[in-house]
Amino acid sequence: MDDTVLLTGAGGRVGTAILADLAAAYDWRLLDRDPPTDESAYPGEFVVADVNDEDAIRDAMDDVGAVIHLAGDPRPDAPWKSVLENNIDGTHTVMQAAVDAGVEKFVFASSNHAVGAYETDERTPDMYRPHDDFRLDGTELPRPKNVYGVSKATGETLGRYFHDMHDLSVVCVRIGNLTKDHPPKDYERGQAMWLSYRDCAHLFDRCLQADYDYEIVYGISDNDRKYYSIDRAREVLGYDPQDNSAEFADD
Amino acid sequence: MDDTVLLTGAGGRVGTAILADLAAAYDWRLLDRDPPTDESAYPGEFVVADVNDEDAIRDAMDDVGAVIHLAGDPRPDAPWKSVLENNIDGTHTVMQAAVDAGVEKFVFASSNHAVGAYETDERTPDMYRPHDDFRLDGTELPRPKNVYGVSKATGETLGRYFHDMHDLSVVCVRIGNLTKDHPPKDYERGQAMWLSYRDCAHLFDRCLQADYDYEIVYGISDNDRKYYSIDRAREVLGYDPQDNSAEFADD
Repeated sequence: MDDTVLLTGAGGRVGTAILADLAAAYDWRLLDRDPPTDESAYPGEFVVADVNDEDAIRDAMDDVGAVIHLAGDPRPDAPWKSVLENNIDGTHTVMQAAVDAGVEKFVFASSNHAVGAYETDERTPDMYRPHDDFRLDGTELPRPKNVYGVSKATGETLGRYFHDMHDLSVVCVRIGNLTKDHPPKDYERGQAMWLSYRDCAHLFDRCLQADYDYEIVYGISDNDRKYYSIDRAREVLGYDPQDNSAEFADD
Repeated sequence: MDDTVLLTGAGGRVGTAILADLAAAYDWRLLDRDPPTDESAYPGEFVVADVNDEDAIRDAMDDVGAVIHLAGDPRPDAPWKSVLENNIDGTHTVMQAAVDAGVEKFVFASSNHAVGAYETDERTPDMYRPHDDFRLDGTELPRPKNVYGVSKATGETLGRYFHDMHDLSVVCVRIGNLTKDHPPKDYERGQAMWLSYRDCAHLFDRCLQADYDYEIVYGISDNDRKYYSIDRAREVLGYDPQDNSAEFADD
């Protein structure tokens, strides 16, 4: 891919993990609502804009071949008005601008929170442990535990619409628990859905390289204990994770 | 059920079909954004309010045991800003107010448009005809052909969230093609998803009477040609439709 890759929400944690490994791999255009403290730390042009600024987003699509859309309110306890504006309306704005600009691939940062309420009292904590075989694979209906998760599920549905009606290739990555260096400690749930920084960068690299129509995949490392299937990410994207939270087990 | 039933969007077509048969069956509170031309034509108190007027919606929940939420922009080609405000934000406002007021049952008017893009070029027009066995049953992921459908899918997800986290009984009815007296003519798709007025009233009556947790059902008559299953509506709600578009066949 020769075109520019637009990365929204570049200053956030997922953006940091992606750029840590892929800075030199693409011609990046980085976008964030907040100006960077050190612009020279970023490998590319930096655009300061809100995702609901339609004109700015339209301008940011110039020469763009693929979008990684991470921007939005990342708080699982974010209030409705914020996720409505930043996550739902913002994702529509970015997807519509991408379609209008002829972008080919759109990688949407969804979240484990889109399906958080599958973790019922009856299933937990067993489902966080290796002996349990409950597993979600991305074909299940959304079931969010918070309105942040509702907003991510809506982003997935918007992606489905823009794929079906406007021929955009869309992959929605339900990102697990992204932490640097090691999995969260004393937190079984987070260990089961751990995503290491290098697996995160590799997964988003595959999202930029692979061919697909519309996909929902889970973004976690190859943890022994997991309740999200990574089969689809392996098959369609060629995802080949290197990390496993069990190798850090101290409990 | 002795409590008041709040019907939003009472002046619309679905509301008209419901009230035609069920005027005397419930203690209705009727709500619409537009004042009625003849208030005496309505069997109950009429509240003029926008679904995004949080205070008015909160007041309208007084003594309410169940809500039928039909209000919203009903146009399949409605623009994004309208469905964002009227359908997505509006449904959140009404569901949140219902939960806060201790409402037990919430009937959400979803739409066949939540899954319209399953009607691909490869499947149509065969899927509109009796020999074809393609059938959707409500467990499939949303696949909208327009942003109106995206907004209806989001309402379903909001219902899932309010059920799981706030113990509201929610049924989402993916309403087919509601027409009075007879199915649409020369329109195979509309005949396959026809919902007669009396079956519509009966279905919403069942939604008020039956016990359920969270359901997505299709709202169509018992048409010979159909690509939406009504099995779930029969099983969970006791839906027993009387009409069949094939009995009106003239082609």
